[in-house]
Amino acid sequence: MFEQLALIGCGLMGGSFALALRRAGLVKRIVGYSKSPSTTERARQLGVIDVEAPSALLAVSGADIVLLAVPVAATESTLKAIRHLVRRDMLVMDVGSTKRDVVEAARRALREHVGTFVPCHPITGKEKAGVEHADPDLYRDRQVIITPIERTLVSQLQRAEQVWAAVGSRVLKMSPDAHDAAYATVSHLPHVLAFAMMNSVLGQAQADQFLSLAGPGFRDFTRIAASDPAVWRDIVVANRSEVLNQSRQFREALARFEALIESADAPAVEALIRQASEARARWRMGNVQED
Amino acid sequence: MFEQLALIGCGLMGGSFALALRRAGLVKRIVGYSKSPSTTERARQLGVIDVEAPSALLAVSGADIVLLAVPVAATESTLKAIRHLVRRDMLVMDVGSTKRDVVEAARRALREHVGTFVPCHPITGKEKAGVEHADPDLYRDRQVIITPIERTLVSQLQRAEQVWAAVGSRVLKMSPDAHDAAYATVSHLPHVLAFAMMNSVLGQAQADQFLSLAGPGFRDFTRIAASDPAVWRDIVVANRSEVLNQSRQFREALARFEALIESADAPAVEALIRQASEARARWRMGNVQED
Repeated sequence: MFEQLALIGCGLMGGSFALALRRAGLVKRIVGYSKSPSTTERARQLGVIDVEAPSALLAVSGADIVLLAVPVAATESTLKAIRHLVRRDMLVMDVGSTKRDVVEAARRALREHVGTFVPCHPITGKEKAGVEHADPDLYRDRQVIITPIERTLVSQLQRAEQVWAAVGSRVLKMSPDAHDAAYATVSHLPHVLAFAMMNSVLGQAQADQFLSLAGPGFRDFTRIAASDPAVWRDIVVANRSEVLNQSRQFREALARFEALIESADAPAVEALIRQASEARARWRMGNVQED
Repeated sequence: MFEQLALIGCGLMGGSFALALRRAGLVKRIVGYSKSPSTTERARQLGVIDVEAPSALLAVSGADIVLLAVPVAATESTLKAIRHLVRRDMLVMDVGSTKRDVVEAARRALREHVGTFVPCHPITGKEKAGVEHADPDLYRDRQVIITPIERTLVSQLQRAEQVWAAVGSRVLKMSPDAHDAAYATVSHLPHVLAFAMMNSVLGQAQADQFLSLAGPGFRDFTRIAASDPAVWRDIVVANRSEVLNQSRQFREALARFEALIESADAPAVEALIRQASEARARWRMGNVQED
């Protein structure tokens, strides 16, 4: 049981964590801070937080658990803003979608206290940003990747695992490098492709007509294109070497496909589609039967 | 009210049409034919069709409405197989995702009877092929694009519109060329990108690990990659000039994105994402509020 959660960033991810932690009966008091005061106020009006703090530092005052839920490029400045109140027995976590840059930011900002910081990436989300879409079930039955470093305190790592389990998540541990390579492949690049798909359509004179004709395939394929611009700007820039590496491999796969289409080589086109189709039909999210 | 539906191709699309037409009380008898006798038998066992026909021609014998639900490249041979029984008062429709090639196939195969053929493309589907996934609601609240040619009989066009309305669809009419350009953009290319994304991941040594870590964004983005290989082989080959044109425009949009990521130009990256995100957040399928 925690006395006080300091929620830094009262958006979808942070707000959902606050609701889930409270529902699990794990926290007495939630003090929130967002860069925009109107966001913090809305979070309080919605009952997501109990108290609005005027700064990240004041949110952390009296807290024994801290969640950073800000765009990843804001990690370092946020940790620097709270470092004077970070104690060895305080659990500090983030929810950023990149981990190498977050870990480096934590090393620089927290120095001797870096061991209290547990880098986390919950594999969940919605394409509707904002605290008004916060959902206590957002983390339920989802994977959370934890990427400890050699200096991470075992005691804090264990507490982090317990907290995520309490909100219904399954914890996996891996290195920051392995994390960033994997998520460039299965998350960051797909987002870039969905953004580029929308940009490509929007750049055409008949964009409005084309979009009015699109159906359920387009709806699902482009759902992630509606993601939060500030969040995804930081992710693709922070993880750019892996994202560009994956984009190069994707372009090679696309070029092979195009060449076969151009030569109208139906059996070879079918073979490529069949490889993709059978693998996707077999795939289950988190190896769990769902869709 | 129709006496007999000849269903040629007893898969997901055809089976769903049969179920919907029967539920609407519009047909007395459904005779089905599929290239694979085991498919036709399963359709009868599931109650999707009443009678199994040993050939397309025999399915059409006694029919006053015919639905072709076969991969688009099979359109011409199928129409040739039934042409001796096609009459002026028989409504013949297809459900193919390309229309220019289908219309040309119909001209060649049906000649003087081409006016009885109404080319249709329902904007619906599932990524689970086969008659066992047939669903009488598949066409409900979906758009159906009809692409008549100058020789299409007005009487047949009107009957086709009535049939689609009776199963809950909204009909839109356009030219085959306009259709193929639009659907290359919002359907065929997204499928190719989703296939290529899967191919790209599968070509990497860590494919299994990466796929086990993928979350809901990947799930939605790649859902269409599980589509039927024979159906999609025909679509991308039939519409290859438009698909390749759209792929080129997409690659240009992706290259612009990559260049900004590479230079870590965060504001410009955010601007591109924001354009995509705002457009996608505003978009509603068929201009109807849904997701």
